[in-house]
Amino acid sequence: MNKATLYQQLAPEARHEKGLSRLNQFICLLILLASMTAILETEPTLRLMAPGLFPALEAIFVGLFMVEYLLRLYAIGEDPRYRGLGGRLRYIFSFWALIDLMAILPYFMGFIVYNNAFLLRLLRLARMLRLARLGRFSQAWASLADALKSRSHELLLSAGVAGLLLLFSSCCLYVVEAAAQPEAFGSVPRALWWSIATLTTVGYGDVTPVTALGKVFAGLTAVAGIGLIAMPTGILAAAFSDAFQNKRNS
Amino acid sequence: MNKATLYQQLAPEARHEKGLSRLNQFICLLILLASMTAILETEPTLRLMAPGLFPALEAIFVGLFMVEYLLRLYAIGEDPRYRGLGGRLRYIFSFWALIDLMAILPYFMGFIVYNNAFLLRLLRLARMLRLARLGRFSQAWASLADALKSRSHELLLSAGVAGLLLLFSSCCLYVVEAAAQPEAFGSVPRALWWSIATLTTVGYGDVTPVTALGKVFAGLTAVAGIGLIAMPTGILAAAFSDAFQNKRNS
Amino acid sequence: MNKATLYQQLAPEARHEKGLSRLNQFICLLILLASMTAILETEPTLRLMAPGLFPALEAIFVGLFMVEYLLRLYAIGEDPRYRGLGGRLRYIFSFWALIDLMAILPYFMGFIVYNNAFLLRLLRLARMLRLARLGRFSQAWASLADALKSRSHELLLSAGVAGLLLLFSSCCLYVVEAAAQPEAFGSVPRALWWSIATLTTVGYGDVTPVTALGKVFAGLTAVAGIGLIAMPTGILAAAFSDAFQNKRNS
Amino acid sequence: MNKATLYQQLAPEARHEKGLSRLNQFICLLILLASMTAILETEPTLRLMAPGLFPALEAIFVGLFMVEYLLRLYAIGEDPRYRGLGGRLRYIFSFWALIDLMAILPYFMGFIVYNNAFLLRLLRLARMLRLARLGRFSQAWASLADALKSRSHELLLSAGVAGLLLLFSSCCLYVVEAAAQPEAFGSVPRALWWSIATLTTVGYGDVTPVTALGKVFAGLTAVAGIGLIAMPTGILAAAFSDAFQNKRNS
Repeated sequence: MNKATLYQQLAPEARHEKGLSRLNQFICLLILLASMTAILETEPTLRLMAPGLFPALEAIFVGLFMVEYLLRLYAIGEDPRYRGLGGRLRYIFSFWALIDLMAILPYFMGFIVYNNAFLLRLLRLARMLRLARLGRFSQAWASLADALKSRSHELLLSAGVAGLLLLFSSCCLYVVEAAAQPEAFGSVPRALWWSIATLTTVGYGDVTPVTALGKVFAGLTAVAGIGLIAMPTGILAAAFSDAFQNKRNS
Repeated sequence: MNKATLYQQLAPEARHEKGLSRLNQFICLLILLASMTAILETEPTLRLMAPGLFPALEAIFVGLFMVEYLLRLYAIGEDPRYRGLGGRLRYIFSFWALIDLMAILPYFMGFIVYNNAFLLRLLRLARMLRLARLGRFSQAWASLADALKSRSHELLLSAGVAGLLLLFSSCCLYVVEAAAQPEAFGSVPRALWWSIATLTTVGYGDVTPVTALGKVFAGLTAVAGIGLIAMPTGILAAAFSDAFQNKRNS
Repeated sequence: MNKATLYQQLAPEARHEKGLSRLNQFICLLILLASMTAILETEPTLRLMAPGLFPALEAIFVGLFMVEYLLRLYAIGEDPRYRGLGGRLRYIFSFWALIDLMAILPYFMGFIVYNNAFLLRLLRLARMLRLARLGRFSQAWASLADALKSRSHELLLSAGVAGLLLLFSSCCLYVVEAAAQPEAFGSVPRALWWSIATLTTVGYGDVTPVTALGKVFAGLTAVAGIGLIAMPTGILAAAFSDAFQNKRNS
Repeated sequence: MNKATLYQQLAPEARHEKGLSRLNQFICLLILLASMTAILETEPTLRLMAPGLFPALEAIFVGLFMVEYLLRLYAIGEDPRYRGLGGRLRYIFSFWALIDLMAILPYFMGFIVYNNAFLLRLLRLARMLRLARLGRFSQAWASLADALKSRSHELLLSAGVAGLLLLFSSCCLYVVEAAAQPEAFGSVPRALWWSIATLTTVGYGDVTPVTALGKVFAGLTAVAGIGLIAMPTGILAAAFSDAFQNKRNS
């Protein structure tokens, strides 16, 4: 495989045909597997069951990603922007190349704390998202983004109204319930926790009003939560409907 | 009733008129009753209240389904694909005929464990679903399936975004809450349980964050859950609206 | 006021002008007040606080409703269908007149148990609903009913799919969790309680799976619940959109 | 800066250009910061951590708002309605000027109870909402308000149906569960608390039915809750779709 075809296979934006190349599809799969491994490794019982498995898997994944990184560095010379040694250096410090590097490097620096490395390894998922944008989902991505953008003012406005509602119901519950439950409703920020769980209709139930007046306000908040869901859903539905019809008409 | 009319009555796809035949309607009812019996039989208090009832009912249902199976085997000869003894054998090993058989056979093999037999008996419901597709709901089925298919990329994309969101909020809560609640947030897969309950706005409340930072992330997750519901709802609404208008215009 | 104008005021369907007559608006208010009284009367603390208030209010309401009933019986003679003594008798046994009577009679029959009388008194609300259909909301009522009817097959189908999903997830949880929690998941009907709370995203949290496999199935059920909400919402949105456009075009 | 330009900067409705003036943008920011301070001040742990911070911040905010109030009072003379001393007095007693005053005054009247002052300070947010209406979001605000208004009858009707459903399910649960759980379901108003949490799919889980019949009714209520969400969402989606198409066609 010469440098030009390798570049075509590795760089999604350089490809003439639609969709992702075989190599990029394989890399997507690799990223998914590596991420899943990183996630499962956090579970202590699994680490105990197979003590040597996770370090071994991680070594394999890091090896493969390093090979890919070096190949990409070699092939990128095909891109006129990154030609020569200076171009290579510029590529290394480009945004996506740094993301790639940050997912490999921690492995070689054993002194980094465990948790941070785990999050750095999941950075790879961001790259997969970027590949998805260029692959088969590029059109769906564009139509969703268009719909969201065309109605961004309406969505922001309904988010603002929701925020005020959230604040208002927190204040009400704070005033009414603070005396009865100082731990849960003793301040507005504390009442916000209840308020957000109610307005989004999550409703954990770890904190609930106990006074009669508090229950009346809570009921009104829950009903307002319906509107909070209905509003953006309606706006999005109308925006998508618009976007789909525009595409059909044009 | 001769073989040809029996075939017309039994095979929904062979019928010229619209809707299901009387016989198939009766079989649908039978399937519903048999499934309900299978479900109620799992309740110990009901089994104790009427010890002989459920085995007797099951015997009746199995008898009727066996008669139906044999009649169908006899009548299927009308179909040119399944003519003769070889055709019959081929029919027996066709997908839907095997489903039918699997719902009857366990009764005669007493040595099968109880739970499995219960699930096999509910396989009959799959057949009812197939009848529904050919009956009165065929058009509604087609229009719903069309709408889903035409927007499958958008729906998959929003599912992907939801998946990443799920993962992201699990990681956040794991990093923040693992120390305070190792049992519930001690690993990313454990935090996923909380995360999925929050993002879908189910909110059981068996596991909730206790640290201030955890509550902030949880609140953001709950708000993102609204988007998780609004997104596919909006896409579906637009897709259905499209599908209905297409039908009216054509 | 003579019989003809009284009839015009009482019978909403006999009215030429749009909207409800003054008298019927007053009766709507009366029904609302009487219903609210009946509801508040069930609260023991309120009964203790004002022991004589509720019986007195109920006596006034029953008196007013009896006067209305007798006036209606007198005025109904204007309707050619209910002319003469035979017509009056026929009217008394008509559906809505019986509803009216059933809300008054229990008061005079002290021997009826308390709870039943309470429910009978709320029957009056049904009449208010009927008045609303003829008043200012008649057009909104018609457009909503039209939209629901035009997509009844799609809605029924999605309800059927939801029902199967409900059953399926109950069976899964029963098989997986029955051993660990026999009280909550010991039979399919018991698991249904959990299943319905999860699929509708209510999520009480009084019953939650504890095994790892149970949590996996529960997570899938919760995600399916999103679809369960998105499906009918999308169908309704498309149907309403259709209905509003039809009205504008015609 | 002379009086005329000051008036242009302060009065959003007097401005010729689109959007908010620099000064009003700064005031919006100030309101947001002051509100956040007022909210955080309610938290006792924060008050303990920085004992002198909150009074100092409030003094600064009150000072700035007072300057703004006096500037506005001075500049309002440019408006022909509020010219002269009589006009100024009329302005002081106009709705929005009173709101402004009520957010400043409590600071100087130390004898007002703490909680009330906190709520008065949040009144300023109302003014920010008013500025948002005149700024960049004016068009989004208009299109949302139009859509809501054009379908107000349908929305009110579905709210009415939801109210009846709420009442109906409370009555059912009261009749069925009152004996088993007198504390939670001992009266219809008490059952309403459970009912509203279920119908809005919040589902705290602090109160759940325990009898078999109660669970059946609760399940039906939860399913009806789906409709309660789907109905207004569908109406809003159709209304927004309508409003967006109208704007495009015109």
